[in-house]
Amino acid sequence: MKTKKILLPDQMIPAQWYNIVADMPQKPLPPLDPRTRRPVTAEQMNCIFAEELVRQEFSTERFIDIPDEVRDLYRIWRCTPLVRAYALERALDTPAKIYFKNESVSPAGSHKPNTALPQAYYNAKQGIKHLTTETGGGQWGSAIALASQYFGLDLKVFMVKVSYEQKPYRKLLMNTWGAEVIPSPSTLTDAGRRALADDPDCSGNLGLAISEAVETAVQHPDDTRYCLGSVLNHVLLHQTVIGEEALVQMEMAGDEPDVVIGCFGGGSNFAGIGFPFLRRNLREGARTRIVAVEPASCPKLTRGTFQYDFGDVAGMTPMLPMYTLGHNFQPADIHAGGLRYHGAGSIVSQLLRDGLIEAQAVPQLETFRAGLLFARTEGIVPAPESTHAIAAAVREALRAKEEGASKTILFNLSGHGMIDLYAYEQYFADKLQDYTVTDAELRRTIDQLDRIIK
Amino acid sequence: MKTKKILLPDQMIPAQWYNIVADMPQKPLPPLDPRTRRPVTAEQMNCIFAEELVRQEFSTERFIDIPDEVRDLYRIWRCTPLVRAYALERALDTPAKIYFKNESVSPAGSHKPNTALPQAYYNAKQGIKHLTTETGGGQWGSAIALASQYFGLDLKVFMVKVSYEQKPYRKLLMNTWGAEVIPSPSTLTDAGRRALADDPDCSGNLGLAISEAVETAVQHPDDTRYCLGSVLNHVLLHQTVIGEEALVQMEMAGDEPDVVIGCFGGGSNFAGIGFPFLRRNLREGARTRIVAVEPASCPKLTRGTFQYDFGDVAGMTPMLPMYTLGHNFQPADIHAGGLRYHGAGSIVSQLLRDGLIEAQAVPQLETFRAGLLFARTEGIVPAPESTHAIAAAVREALRAKEEGASKTILFNLSGHGMIDLYAYEQYFADKLQDYTVTDAELRRTIDQLDRIIK
Repeated sequence: MKTKKILLPDQMIPAQWYNIVADMPQKPLPPLDPRTRRPVTAEQMNCIFAEELVRQEFSTERFIDIPDEVRDLYRIWRCTPLVRAYALERALDTPAKIYFKNESVSPAGSHKPNTALPQAYYNAKQGIKHLTTETGGGQWGSAIALASQYFGLDLKVFMVKVSYEQKPYRKLLMNTWGAEVIPSPSTLTDAGRRALADDPDCSGNLGLAISEAVETAVQHPDDTRYCLGSVLNHVLLHQTVIGEEALVQMEMAGDEPDVVIGCFGGGSNFAGIGFPFLRRNLREGARTRIVAVEPASCPKLTRGTFQYDFGDVAGMTPMLPMYTLGHNFQPADIHAGGLRYHGAGSIVSQLLRDGLIEAQAVPQLETFRAGLLFARTEGIVPAPESTHAIAAAVREALRAKEEGASKTILFNLSGHGMIDLYAYEQYFADKLQDYTVTDAELRRTIDQLDRIIK
Repeated sequence: MKTKKILLPDQMIPAQWYNIVADMPQKPLPPLDPRTRRPVTAEQMNCIFAEELVRQEFSTERFIDIPDEVRDLYRIWRCTPLVRAYALERALDTPAKIYFKNESVSPAGSHKPNTALPQAYYNAKQGIKHLTTETGGGQWGSAIALASQYFGLDLKVFMVKVSYEQKPYRKLLMNTWGAEVIPSPSTLTDAGRRALADDPDCSGNLGLAISEAVETAVQHPDDTRYCLGSVLNHVLLHQTVIGEEALVQMEMAGDEPDVVIGCFGGGSNFAGIGFPFLRRNLREGARTRIVAVEPASCPKLTRGTFQYDFGDVAGMTPMLPMYTLGHNFQPADIHAGGLRYHGAGSIVSQLLRDGLIEAQAVPQLETFRAGLLFARTEGIVPAPESTHAIAAAVREALRAKEEGASKTILFNLSGHGMIDLYAYEQYFADKLQDYTVTDAELRRTIDQLDRIIK
């Protein structure tokens, strides 16, 4: 019997996270204070985030130790399996080998607990009592709910309203782990009230939910901090356990990926699988293609502009150097809620600008088609976000078939879709559609942005 | 770092299922044809089930080879991890060691694919084109949907109406894997129409759904067969992969369970974890307690009568020797839909009668309390069915604490509750209650049964 799953024992859980900043030929530009246009200091960020997380945000060390308390909790589901997708390969009749890293086996059903646990840990260690955050598809919110539970922290989650309505089970999961969940835009914050005044039917977006969560946190600097599930350097850092394990597992499989693929929202899952492989490109002369896959309806990497922009709609965050669609861009209501974000983090943006990674955009219907094929071959129903990575892997595999070329593909299955099944129902009922963004729309949001930050 | 998860590589997937009939001191009584009161022949059963499954149903061989095609598919999620529940132990402050076998990692989220795959395989091999089945909580229905998909079989699932309404995502999961799902009682069958005539608001039960599925299958003997997710010998047989793996894993952990616990609906998950350990009791003089845990609202093992009864409400199945509440017993609408069945299979019933296994009944609120503790310590939200095993494990652990005794507990986590979160919402909202069954109710259903089968 051929090996399908490469497993690693608990003891192989990485002892360190990998910080790619150490190896970047061009370092990412610093975040700026929008009022002064000067780099934000750690002190300024310490009132938003736990201090150790801010330290990591600015760190240039190559490896950062994972605390024992966090590694102990990682054992609940890590190391995750590396799986050879034999059945998918057969269905595609491709000469390519397809592997996926299965992050869906975590208790929250996605890769998000990889960073939720250390974030809750560092906050608790600092004496913080309350956390606030936002969530798009609900994957991050449920992960940080679990983590907050473990470390005895109170948690308030602002959930993008369209996801709140589409994914009631995500809300229930957060409740099960003790969190309070609020649909965003809400009337609890200035940012939410402004959005509702502009458009009472506003379905929300990640940028707006971030504004609400940050606003709530900064009002109680003594015992409350905000935390974020993607975009920032320290978040990407924590996710590198995925790729570090995958490096070992691919070697055990006796294979070498030609291309490594991750779906792309704010960058955490993409960085998690991609950065350790990118290290080998940067330091050891390997030539693995590292591909980020975004929805065609939110194409910041493939069609956005590289410039300083806010991380949130209300402009409360520092300005980050990012590929962006403009922080006031309102993405279509696609089911991949976790990918509905206007910008990319500064590390990923710099890497893309320097040609060290690639980006692709895939339309919604293609992703569901690929996701369904995956569900019916590999047996796992993928999260709508993850179907973007699957769709790109399928493209690569079909291209290999056309070219009659052997190729080894690795993608990250960032989460399962067991509680996103409503999206599949919509797909079956032909109620889903593709969304495109016109050049005029792109121009408009960027122009607007230029006026604001001028 | 202490090992939390004992993993086994793909190659350790058992090559054979274990048939406990070979080792039973008293063999189970045969199924009877209700008209003739004579043992049912294999020929009679062949028009309901695939022939190889009928052969296994009557087999007395100790071990039966698992086909390569089935083992290959088992690799999707097997071997499942054996997990040491350190966090739960700490929360209970118990000297007991608690292990669980994590069957929730399967694509359908429960142990059910262990038997769904071979059942679909043997049917397809025989040239059958259509399958019918029933499902209670939806765990079995989604497992057989996945398996039917793999082997190119059409599937019609009669889903107990209360679960159909409580668990829309289960239905969607079955649809995603290509199955047709019908709430039971339905107007498609005589059995369904009779039930609706008696009570138009009938919320259904497993026994009635079985009647509908069997009735549908036997109308097309040329290309249609029925399949069942529990109760029968061949189903229990397939589930023994759980316990066979656990035997190896407990040895790797250097521990020996004093008690092995499984929740109990029709017996498949209980047999899966329990029978391989029972083999050591029967053949090697081990003295492990093997405990079946049922809901207090459906107490066939602890308060039922041992006698011949039908497997379904309409009396279409052969009569089985079982601990039963009467085949027309209507259990309360508890959330553990998979445990709402009136009888126990003939093997388990014989073992209980002979004192070789134990049984316990647990009320609904205690199970949710235990399930929530588990979700908040071990991180996994358990299925309502599985919370029964957790509740019994908690009782054992607390008893060990009272007695100051060391003890090793192993239970089977038969499934996760990611798409049963509605039940947890009801629990949080104080909308769940305990149900008890009065002696008069028990007497009435059995009396009724006596009149029917006299």
